[in-house]
Amino acid sequence: MNLKALEGKPLGYRASTKEVLDALRFGSDGLLPAIAQQYDTGEVLMMAWMNREALEETLANKQVCYWSRSRQRLWRKGEESRQVQQLVELRTDCDGDTLLLLVDQTGPACHTGRASCFYWKFEEEDVVMDREPMVDPEELYGER
Amino acid sequence: MNLKALEGKPLGYRASTKEVLDALRFGSDGLLPAIAQQYDTGEVLMMAWMNREALEETLANKQVCYWSRSRQRLWRKGEESRQVQQLVELRTDCDGDTLLLLVDQTGPACHTGRASCFYWKFEEEDVVMDREPMVDPEELYGER
Repeated sequence: MNLKALEGKPLGYRASTKEVLDALRFGSDGLLPAIAQQYDTGEVLMMAWMNREALEETLANKQVCYWSRSRQRLWRKGEESRQVQQLVELRTDCDGDTLLLLVDQTGPACHTGRASCFYWKFEEEDVVMDREPMVDPEELYGER
Repeated sequence: MNLKALEGKPLGYRASTKEVLDALRFGSDGLLPAIAQQYDTGEVLMMAWMNREALEETLANKQVCYWSRSRQRLWRKGEESRQVQQLVELRTDCDGDTLLLLVDQTGPACHTGRASCFYWKFEEEDVVMDREPMVDPEELYGER
Protein backbone atom coordinates (compact mmCIF):
# COMPACT_ATOMS: atom_id res chain seq x y z
CA MET A 1 0.00 0.00 0.00
CA ASN A 2 1.14 3.49 -0.89
CA LEU A 3 -0.39 6.61 0.62
CA LYS A 4 -0.05 8.51 -2.66
CA ALA A 5 -2.33 5.95 -4.30
CA LEU A 6 -5.04 6.98 -1.82
CA GLU A 7 -4.81 10.74 -2.26
CA GLY A 8 -7.99 10.93 -4.34
CA LYS A 9 -10.11 9.15 -1.73
CA PRO A 10 -13.08 11.05 -0.27
CA LEU A 11 -13.13 12.92 3.03
CA GLY A 12 -13.56 10.44 5.88
CA TYR A 13 -11.80 7.58 4.08
CA ARG A 14 -10.26 5.20 6.60
CA ALA A 15 -7.23 2.93 6.36
CA SER A 16 -6.13 0.54 9.08
CA THR A 17 -3.36 1.73 11.38
CA LYS A 18 -1.25 -1.25 10.40
CA GLU A 19 -1.64 -0.49 6.68
CA VAL A 20 -0.59 3.12 7.25
CA LEU A 21 2.34 2.16 9.48
CA ASP A 22 3.50 -0.24 6.77
CA ALA A 23 3.14 2.50 4.14
CA LEU A 24 5.25 5.09 5.99
CA ARG A 25 8.47 5.86 4.16
CA PHE A 26 11.09 5.56 6.88
CA GLY A 27 14.51 6.71 5.65
CA SER A 28 17.46 4.41 5.03
CA ASP A 29 18.32 4.96 8.72
CA GLY A 30 14.84 3.72 9.69
CA LEU A 31 13.75 7.18 10.82
CA LEU A 32 11.05 9.71 10.05
CA PRO A 33 11.17 13.39 11.01
CA ALA A 34 8.56 14.24 13.66
CA ILE A 35 7.43 17.82 14.21
CA ALA A 36 6.06 18.59 17.69
CA GLN A 37 3.51 21.40 17.87
CA GLN A 38 1.78 22.64 21.02
CA TYR A 39 -1.84 21.63 20.40
CA ASP A 40 -3.58 24.75 21.75
CA THR A 41 -1.25 27.63 20.84
CA GLY A 42 0.03 26.20 17.54
CA GLU A 43 3.65 26.95 18.51
CA VAL A 44 6.11 24.64 16.78
CA LEU A 45 8.26 23.37 19.65
CA MET A 46 10.92 21.13 18.12
CA MET A 47 11.70 18.54 15.51
CA ALA A 48 13.08 15.12 16.31
CA TRP A 49 13.11 11.63 14.81
CA MET A 50 11.09 8.45 15.26
CA ASN A 51 11.64 4.90 14.21
CA ARG A 52 8.69 2.54 13.98
CA GLU A 53 9.14 1.35 17.56
CA ALA A 54 9.12 4.92 18.92
CA LEU A 55 6.01 5.70 16.89
CA GLU A 56 4.16 2.59 18.04
CA GLU A 57 5.06 3.27 21.67
CA THR A 58 3.88 6.89 21.32
CA LEU A 59 0.55 5.78 19.86
CA ALA A 60 0.08 3.16 22.57
CA ASN A 61 1.09 5.27 25.61
CA LYS A 62 0.16 8.78 24.44
CA GLN A 63 3.50 9.94 25.84
CA VAL A 64 5.90 10.99 23.13
CA CYS A 65 8.91 8.77 22.54
CA TYR A 66 11.55 9.64 19.92
CA TRP A 67 14.66 7.92 18.62
CA SER A 68 17.77 9.77 19.72
CA ARG A 69 20.25 9.84 16.86
CA SER A 70 23.08 10.99 19.14
CA ARG A 71 22.44 8.29 21.75
CA GLN A 72 21.20 5.66 19.26
CA ARG A 73 18.39 4.57 21.52
CA LEU A 74 14.73 5.29 22.30
CA TRP A 75 14.35 8.66 23.98
CA ARG A 76 11.26 9.07 26.10
CA LYS A 77 10.96 12.85 25.99
CA GLY A 78 11.27 14.14 29.56
CA GLU A 79 12.86 10.95 30.94
CA GLU A 80 15.62 13.11 32.40
CA SER A 81 14.11 16.61 32.52
CA ARG A 82 10.56 15.53 33.45
CA GLN A 83 9.32 17.90 30.71
CA VAL A 84 7.14 15.30 29.00
CA GLN A 85 4.97 15.59 25.91
CA GLN A 86 1.45 14.22 26.13
CA LEU A 87 0.19 13.20 22.71
CA VAL A 88 -3.03 14.92 21.67
CA GLU A 89 -3.08 14.05 17.97
CA LEU A 90 -0.77 12.37 15.49
CA ARG A 91 -0.80 12.94 11.73
CA THR A 92 1.17 11.98 8.69
CA ASP A 93 1.38 13.66 5.31
CA CYS A 94 0.53 12.91 1.69
CA ASP A 95 3.84 11.13 1.10
CA GLY A 96 3.95 9.34 4.47
CA ASP A 97 7.43 10.64 5.10
CA THR A 98 6.85 13.13 7.93
CA LEU A 99 4.94 12.99 11.21
CA LEU A 100 3.14 15.90 12.88
CA LEU A 101 2.52 15.52 16.61
CA LEU A 102 0.11 17.80 18.41
CA VAL A 103 1.26 17.63 22.00
CA ASP A 104 0.68 19.13 25.39
CA GLN A 105 4.19 20.05 26.50
CA THR A 106 5.03 20.18 30.20
CA GLY A 107 7.40 23.12 30.75
CA PRO A 108 9.99 23.95 28.11
CA ALA A 109 10.48 21.69 25.08
CA CYS A 110 14.08 22.81 24.58
CA HIS A 111 17.02 21.47 26.57
CA THR A 112 18.12 25.12 27.00
CA GLY A 113 15.01 25.80 29.11
CA ARG A 114 13.28 27.73 26.30
CA ALA A 115 9.67 26.94 25.40
CA SER A 116 10.62 26.16 21.80
CA CYS A 117 13.89 25.14 20.16
CA PHE A 118 13.36 27.68 17.35
CA TYR A 119 14.77 30.72 19.14
CA TRP A 120 17.09 31.96 16.36
CA LYS A 121 15.27 34.39 14.08
CA PHE A 122 16.78 35.59 10.81
CA GLU A 123 16.50 39.36 10.39
CA GLU A 124 17.77 41.60 7.59
CA GLU A 125 21.38 41.95 8.69
CA ASP A 126 21.82 39.25 11.28
CA VAL A 127 20.19 36.51 13.33
CA VAL A 128 18.77 37.29 16.74
CA MET A 129 18.12 35.08 19.75
CA ASP A 130 14.62 36.16 20.63
CA ARG A 131 13.41 33.73 23.30
CA GLU A 132 14.42 33.61 26.92
CA PRO A 133 14.66 30.44 29.04
CA MET A 134 11.50 29.70 31.09
CA VAL A 135 13.66 27.83 33.58
CA ASP A 136 17.36 27.44 34.20
CA PRO A 137 18.52 24.27 32.42
CA GLU A 138 20.44 23.43 35.61
CA GLU A 139 17.06 22.93 37.27
CA LEU A 140 16.04 20.48 34.57
CA TYR A 141 19.19 18.43 34.37
CA GLY A 142 21.10 19.25 37.56
CA GLU A 143 24.79 18.59 37.41
CA ARG A 144 25.60 16.72 34.25
CA MET B 1 31.17 28.56 15.26
CA ASN B 2 28.64 26.25 16.83
CA LEU B 3 25.13 27.32 17.76
CA LYS B 4 25.14 25.11 20.85
CA ALA B 5 28.08 27.12 22.19
CA LEU B 6 25.85 30.23 22.10
CA GLU B 7 22.83 28.77 23.89
CA GLY B 8 23.58 30.62 27.14
CA LYS B 9 23.72 34.04 25.48
CA PRO B 10 21.22 36.65 26.65
CA LEU B 11 17.95 37.57 24.95
CA GLY B 12 18.65 39.83 21.98
CA TYR B 13 22.09 38.35 21.27
CA ARG B 14 22.94 38.74 17.59
CA ALA B 15 25.14 36.67 15.32
CA SER B 16 25.88 37.54 11.69
CA THR B 17 23.81 35.77 9.05
CA LYS B 18 26.97 34.37 7.50
CA GLU B 19 28.14 32.95 10.83
CA VAL B 20 24.78 31.25 11.37
CA LEU B 21 24.61 29.92 7.81
CA ASP B 22 28.10 28.45 8.27
CA ALA B 23 27.02 26.90 11.58
CA LEU B 24 23.95 25.12 10.21
CA ARG B 25 24.32 21.37 10.30
CA PHE B 26 23.32 20.30 6.81
CA GLY B 27 23.10 16.51 6.50
CA SER B 28 25.49 14.37 4.52
CA ASP B 29 23.20 15.01 1.52
CA GLY B 30 23.65 18.77 2.02
CA LEU B 31 20.05 19.20 3.15
CA LEU B 32 18.14 20.51 6.16
CA PRO B 33 14.49 19.75 6.91
CA ALA B 34 12.33 22.88 6.56
CA ILE B 35 8.90 23.09 8.21
CA ALA B 36 6.44 25.49 6.59
CA GLN B 37 3.82 26.97 8.90
CA GLN B 38 1.10 29.44 7.90
CA TYR B 39 2.15 32.59 9.77
CA ASP B 40 -1.27 33.78 10.95
CA THR B 41 -3.23 30.59 11.65
CA GLY B 42 -0.30 28.49 12.91
CA GLU B 43 -1.27 25.56 10.67
CA VAL B 44 1.67 23.36 9.78
CA LEU B 45 1.42 23.08 6.01
CA MET B 46 4.23 20.77 4.88
CA MET B 47 7.80 19.74 5.40
CA ALA B 48 10.41 19.82 2.65
CA TRP B 49 14.18 20.18 2.32
CA MET B 50 16.62 23.01 1.66
CA ASN B 51 20.24 23.09 0.69
CA ARG B 52 22.28 26.22 1.37
CA GLU B 53 21.53 27.65 -2.06
CA ALA B 54 17.75 27.24 -1.59
CA LEU B 55 17.97 28.85 1.84
CA GLU B 56 20.01 31.82 0.61
CA GLU B 57 17.65 32.35 -2.31
CA THR B 58 14.65 32.21 0.04
CA LEU B 59 16.20 34.79 2.37
CA ALA B 60 17.08 37.07 -0.54
CA ASN B 61 13.79 36.86 -2.47
CA LYS B 62 11.29 36.20 0.34
CA GLN B 63 9.73 33.55 -1.91
CA VAL B 64 10.27 30.05 -0.62
CA CYS B 65 12.61 27.84 -2.62
CA TYR B 66 13.28 24.21 -1.59
CA TRP B 67 15.52 21.47 -2.89
CA SER B 68 13.49 18.73 -4.52
CA ARG B 69 14.95 15.36 -3.58
CA SER B 70 12.93 13.55 -6.25
CA ARG B 71 13.93 15.95 -9.04
CA GLN B 72 17.40 16.73 -7.62
CA ARG B 73 17.10 20.43 -8.38
CA LEU B 74 15.95 23.70 -6.82
CA TRP B 75 12.20 23.79 -6.49
CA ARG B 76 10.65 27.23 -6.37
CA LYS B 77 7.43 26.38 -4.57
CA GLY B 78 4.54 27.24 -6.87
CA GLU B 79 6.66 27.34 -10.05
CA GLU B 80 4.18 24.96 -11.65
CA SER B 81 1.04 25.31 -9.52
CA ARG B 82 1.37 29.08 -8.88
CA GLN B 83 0.64 28.31 -5.19
CA VAL B 84 3.65 30.22 -3.89
CA GLN B 85 4.85 30.72 -0.33
CA GLN B 86 5.79 34.25 0.66
CA LEU B 87 8.34 34.18 3.47
CA VAL B 88 7.26 36.05 6.60
CA GLU B 89 9.87 34.80 9.07
CA LEU B 90 12.65 32.23 9.10
CA ARG B 91 14.03 30.53 12.19
CA THR B 92 16.49 27.83 13.10
CA ASP B 93 16.75 25.76 16.25
CA CYS B 94 19.18 25.21 19.12
CA ASP B 95 21.14 22.59 17.14
CA GLY B 96 21.01 24.41 13.78
CA ASP B 97 19.69 21.30 12.11
CA THR B 98 16.09 22.29 11.30
CA LEU B 99 14.48 25.34 9.73
CA LEU B 100 11.06 26.77 10.57
CA LEU B 101 9.48 28.97 7.91
CA LEU B 102 6.54 31.17 8.70
CA VAL B 103 4.93 31.73 5.34
CA ASP B 104 1.91 33.21 3.68
CA GLN B 105 0.68 30.40 1.48
CA THR B 106 -1.25 31.19 -1.70
CA GLY B 107 -3.98 28.53 -2.09
CA PRO B 108 -3.26 24.96 -1.03
CA ALA B 109 0.23 23.91 0.08
CA CYS B 110 -0.35 20.27 -0.89
CA HIS B 111 -0.08 18.94 -4.42
CA THR B 112 -3.40 17.15 -3.79
CA GLY B 113 -5.17 20.51 -3.55
CA ARG B 114 -5.48 20.30 0.25
CA ALA B 115 -4.48 23.26 2.42
CA SER B 116 -1.96 21.15 4.36
CA CYS B 117 -0.16 17.93 3.53
CA PHE B 118 -0.96 16.50 6.99
CA TYR B 119 -4.41 15.16 6.19
CA TRP B 120 -3.99 11.66 7.64
CA LYS B 121 -5.03 11.58 11.29
CA PHE B 122 -4.37 8.58 13.51
CA GLU B 123 -7.42 7.57 15.54
CA GLU B 124 -7.91 4.68 17.94
CA GLU B 125 -8.60 1.93 15.43
CA ASP B 126 -7.55 3.39 12.14
CA VAL B 127 -6.29 6.42 10.27
CA VAL B 128 -8.72 8.85 8.72
CA MET B 129 -8.37 11.30 5.86
CA ASP B 130 -9.88 14.40 7.40
CA ARG B 131 -9.17 17.24 4.96
CA GLU B 132 -10.84 17.91 1.66
CA PRO B 133 -9.17 19.50 -1.38
CA MET B 134 -9.69 23.28 -1.64
CA VAL B 135 -9.23 22.99 -5.40
CA ASP B 136 -9.06 20.16 -7.89
CA PRO B 137 -5.39 19.31 -8.47
CA GLU B 138 -6.19 19.23 -12.19
CA GLU B 139 -6.72 22.97 -11.98
CA LEU B 140 -3.28 23.41 -10.43
CA TYR B 141 -1.30 21.19 -12.73
CA GLY B 142 -3.53 20.68 -15.77
CA GLU B 143 -2.83 17.52 -17.73
CA ARG B 144 0.39 16.00 -16.50
